[in-house]
Amino acid sequence: MKLIRDGATGLKTLPAFPVVLVTVGQNILTAAACSFYSFEPPSVMIGIKPARYSFELICKLEEFGINIPTADQLSLTEYCGTVSGRNVNKFEEADITPMESIKIQSSLIRECPVNLECKVVSTIDWEGSHRWFIGRIECAHIAEDYSRDQALMFWLGQYRKVGEVLHGKQRIDF
Amino acid sequence: MKLIRDGATGLKTLPAFPVVLVTVGQNILTAAACSFYSFEPPSVMIGIKPARYSFELICKLEEFGINIPTADQLSLTEYCGTVSGRNVNKFEEADITPMESIKIQSSLIRECPVNLECKVVSTIDWEGSHRWFIGRIECAHIAEDYSRDQALMFWLGQYRKVGEVLHGKQRIDF
Repeated sequence: MKLIRDGATGLKTLPAFPVVLVTVGQNILTAAACSFYSFEPPSVMIGIKPARYSFELICKLEEFGINIPTADQLSLTEYCGTVSGRNVNKFEEADITPMESIKIQSSLIRECPVNLECKVVSTIDWEGSHRWFIGRIECAHIAEDYSRDQALMFWLGQYRKVGEVLHGKQRIDF
Repeated sequence: MKLIRDGATGLKTLPAFPVVLVTVGQNILTAAACSFYSFEPPSVMIGIKPARYSFELICKLEEFGINIPTADQLSLTEYCGTVSGRNVNKFEEADITPMESIKIQSSLIRECPVNLECKVVSTIDWEGSHRWFIGRIECAHIAEDYSRDQALMFWLGQYRKVGEVLHGKQRIDF
């Protein structure tokens, strides 16, 4: 038996998305609105609410860093999603280390095992609650021992671990 | 110690995305390129390679169904991702049941616990390997006993289960 529901309720059924820490300039934003966009050129997209401080920054700088936190960095991830960079320097408050980028000007987060340097190549103009920015990945910094099993997922107030591999390659080489 | 890599390698670090069966007309496409787009209006987006049969169909019909498979439906999900609807009727070949939509004309998959009926409201025109379609969710069919823990995730040849909840609400009501 299936229940018939509206679109807003339908959205709640989605399981989880990769949650990442987006750096723009010296600010940090927690985003679960982060998706693959294209293999060639390699690109991702992130969705940001226009009221956010990072929205202003990304419109101005046209670049962002994707910093992938591990499940052990849940507190940091939650913290960066609950305070605004208008009022505090999150690097200082969360006691994390800015790391210099190679291809962009924004800082990266040294404590995250993966950092992707992205330049905005397009903005998605259909207006919903979020605006999306497509970023071409110019350069990646990957911890030698990084495994995708360590990542953190999120949707609708629920943080999850990445689930076990059911089928396919057990290991992906970087 | 972090390794410095190119953008294509950087893409490989992403953990997993919700994998869904997209129905367009009477065809079915397996897509891991599926993301939340906006809360208001409630909308999702899916990415399709232009060479795919479903790409032609979605451009023509301007609608699609999102059918969420469970981890138990891994074989069905793999099957729909490996054959083209140009050559076979996947509903017949996979022995699954077309279910009538309320707001769109495309069939839904009765065996999937969740079906979202979407109308295309915008196409993302920045050209990469995939083109993305934003769909407003007009109506949702949700199995009474559905839990998001049942869903299937995918990225780069690896199918995964959804991981355990680390923090936040344990249960989401539909």
